[in-house]
Amino acid sequence: MDSGETDTIRKDLATALGAGAVLADRNDLGRYLTDWKGTTTGRAIAVVRPATVEDVVTIVRFARSRDLSLVPQGGNTGLAAGAVPLNEGRSIVVSTERLNRITDIDRVGMSVSAEAGVVIDTLRDALKQVGRDLPISFGGSGTATVGGVVSTNAGGANVLRYGMTGQMVLGLQAVTMQGSVVGTTIPLHKNNAGMNWPALLVGAEGTLAIVTSATLRIQTLAAHTATAMLSVPDVSMAMTLLELARDWIGECLSAFEIMSGEALDRVLDLTGRSMPIDRSGWVLLIQAESVSGGVTDVFGDYMEHIFSEGLVMDGAMASSQQQAQDMWALRESLAEAEKAAGPSAKHDISVPISSLPRFVAAVRDAITAYDPNLKLHVFGHVGDGNLHYNVIGVTKESTVAVNRLVHDMVTEFGGSISAEHGIGQYRLDEAYRLLPPEELKLQERIKSLFDPDYRLNPGKLVRRP
Amino acid sequence: MDSGETDTIRKDLATALGAGAVLADRNDLGRYLTDWKGTTTGRAIAVVRPATVEDVVTIVRFARSRDLSLVPQGGNTGLAAGAVPLNEGRSIVVSTERLNRITDIDRVGMSVSAEAGVVIDTLRDALKQVGRDLPISFGGSGTATVGGVVSTNAGGANVLRYGMTGQMVLGLQAVTMQGSVVGTTIPLHKNNAGMNWPALLVGAEGTLAIVTSATLRIQTLAAHTATAMLSVPDVSMAMTLLELARDWIGECLSAFEIMSGEALDRVLDLTGRSMPIDRSGWVLLIQAESVSGGVTDVFGDYMEHIFSEGLVMDGAMASSQQQAQDMWALRESLAEAEKAAGPSAKHDISVPISSLPRFVAAVRDAITAYDPNLKLHVFGHVGDGNLHYNVIGVTKESTVAVNRLVHDMVTEFGGSISAEHGIGQYRLDEAYRLLPPEELKLQERIKSLFDPDYRLNPGKLVRRP
Repeated sequence: MDSGETDTIRKDLATALGAGAVLADRNDLGRYLTDWKGTTTGRAIAVVRPATVEDVVTIVRFARSRDLSLVPQGGNTGLAAGAVPLNEGRSIVVSTERLNRITDIDRVGMSVSAEAGVVIDTLRDALKQVGRDLPISFGGSGTATVGGVVSTNAGGANVLRYGMTGQMVLGLQAVTMQGSVVGTTIPLHKNNAGMNWPALLVGAEGTLAIVTSATLRIQTLAAHTATAMLSVPDVSMAMTLLELARDWIGECLSAFEIMSGEALDRVLDLTGRSMPIDRSGWVLLIQAESVSGGVTDVFGDYMEHIFSEGLVMDGAMASSQQQAQDMWALRESLAEAEKAAGPSAKHDISVPISSLPRFVAAVRDAITAYDPNLKLHVFGHVGDGNLHYNVIGVTKESTVAVNRLVHDMVTEFGGSISAEHGIGQYRLDEAYRLLPPEELKLQERIKSLFDPDYRLNPGKLVRRP
Repeated sequence: MDSGETDTIRKDLATALGAGAVLADRNDLGRYLTDWKGTTTGRAIAVVRPATVEDVVTIVRFARSRDLSLVPQGGNTGLAAGAVPLNEGRSIVVSTERLNRITDIDRVGMSVSAEAGVVIDTLRDALKQVGRDLPISFGGSGTATVGGVVSTNAGGANVLRYGMTGQMVLGLQAVTMQGSVVGTTIPLHKNNAGMNWPALLVGAEGTLAIVTSATLRIQTLAAHTATAMLSVPDVSMAMTLLELARDWIGECLSAFEIMSGEALDRVLDLTGRSMPIDRSGWVLLIQAESVSGGVTDVFGDYMEHIFSEGLVMDGAMASSQQQAQDMWALRESLAEAEKAAGPSAKHDISVPISSLPRFVAAVRDAITAYDPNLKLHVFGHVGDGNLHYNVIGVTKESTVAVNRLVHDMVTEFGGSISAEHGIGQYRLDEAYRLLPPEELKLQERIKSLFDPDYRLNPGKLVRRP
């Protein structure tokens, strides 16, 4: 595109939306064009920041009339480079940051309605003020937005109890590439008057329509929390403890995380923190929450049982909120410690929970056989079958080979090559290598139905046939 | 169709699937052709009963080659005539009753996989044997099937805690009209490797593909249950008690039902049962469950609070399982009592929970203004905003007018004209009268994508443009 056309587009966008809605300066654009990991940078003619649904309709019509692509973006915290434009083409980034109103909190009806640009932690803080909560918990929640968690079907540490973001969506409003505003944020817990097409926009990574607001199920804020750290010799024993936690702690179990000893070593080296328990092998971080103090009793019973049966090597229950926070701080430093250890091949995978022990052993053997110098950095949400099975010490070339090795094994176990991060740009080749052809075809047909000109977030999730 | 062609089709189906798979005798066909309410009867050339997914593929190909329609049917307990064929055309009913295997129960991974024809209560009984449960609770669960609850996105009494059936679906397998087997029942709690198209089949009433099996999230079987019946002067006070229940009982609250005094009068007249509490106005049935005995404490605290604040007219907590069952028996006799009272106009509606008091008053006034002789029979799952707002004393003609009156008001309140029963045949006209045109159009385009010849369950949910 020549600079004359670029200038005209920017000027016309500013005329249509107001000058404050359009960013075009190179310095302003930077943070919208590079992804969270800092490894993918794209190009855009401008960043537009709609303040209303009508603005989004205007932007869609503008894009059609000028033959432009649109890249919807929330907090840009995605880990699959799904929210940054490609490094080519005629793209406009549509940032939702000015769509930032919480429009309804209903503490009787147990729902919250918010525009796409509302930050998750902001929303949670507002809910906590009135004794409610939105149980979406992951590292980027201080920046990630409502539109982002819906469009990526975000997961996190509480999925084993509350499900993925999509399972909390009661309704959403979106703008289609035809320029229609569809859907509703009126809070209805039951609505079978029609097809479930809004669910298609969940996890669609902004490739089908632009989500402008959503209504989500909320929960009563827990008054009582119990947290413990346990060490076990292997993943198999972790599964035994998970099964017993399901039996003893039941619906109150809200997190069941795993960290390998070697990954924790890197955390201790980096942060200078100390472990509250002895450990070798694997460490579990378990949390339970309830409105009822009874949760502390059943959690205590569980701990007593697993110790008396000799199932754990060591363990401690947090006796204060500070101790619980310290335990979680170890968990939350894993990504940073991995980064400090050098380049890594990352995998966000899930397999059937019951096959995790076999899977972990099989992948370890395969990686060692491929290159015994590679180091594993494994952690994740074992309670829902999701591991971040990362491999440190790779080169640019071996990354592709290691990705394929891990994903082949995931496929063999019937698992998913993207549990919670999505496909985006990063995993598009792998998705097309491994997903069933008839399902890829179905996705392409759905894409064509919503966005026949492939203007919405091109190069992510689905290819143009 | 002439009888020669009919005979040929039946014979060829028997050849393709085995004689035991095909029913064609008028006496055998009866129960597949009339809906649960007994008010809609259709016609079919035959009922086929596939025993495998491959059988379903064979049936789909057969239908295409002979220009036939297919009507998928589970337990045929639907309340919108969505599972019986039209009274015209070239239909084959595809009963899932021989697809009846529970293929996996994973008590660590907290999932169950079952073929479409497995009966819900059978599945729940199997789960309870191993300390787990599938919290889908509604009247027809002794006959309704896995494929049915998925295809209708079934609701019921526990939705306020666990969500609709769709929110429990981890995966499903289906046969498309292209003859492909798509999807998976491998249990993955997190899977973002692709579009969320399986969610489209949830609540699609068998119009997009034939669901052959599903994997559903399960829960730990509750060890402790608390049940109470309360009487309140009006729906507004019911909302106050609901809000307090959310505060005090939190996540343990599993049912919050409402019954009008006049509806209960009919139950008492019909069954000779007695009420455990005095009542006038409205009666609530509240239940809480947990793996922890703490649920009894918080429930007791709640009861003490609402009594000491003078918020209820009367109330009783069940002190035994028998007492709890007796309370539920009153609730479950409402439909029968309504039937005994004569013809009624039925509505399965939801509105935002917070607007229920205004809605109930406004509809009552409008019905009285329309015809003061009509009687209301109102009950429902008030905890999730869903009322069965039924009107007794209608004629065939006034039913249409009353339907429109209620649905217009529902639309005015931003509600849904089908909360949990679906559109089927019964509400198709009303759906086309009241849903936004661009959404009807979107549904038709999705229908055409999956089933371009409109062979699957014609005349339900979506019209051929």
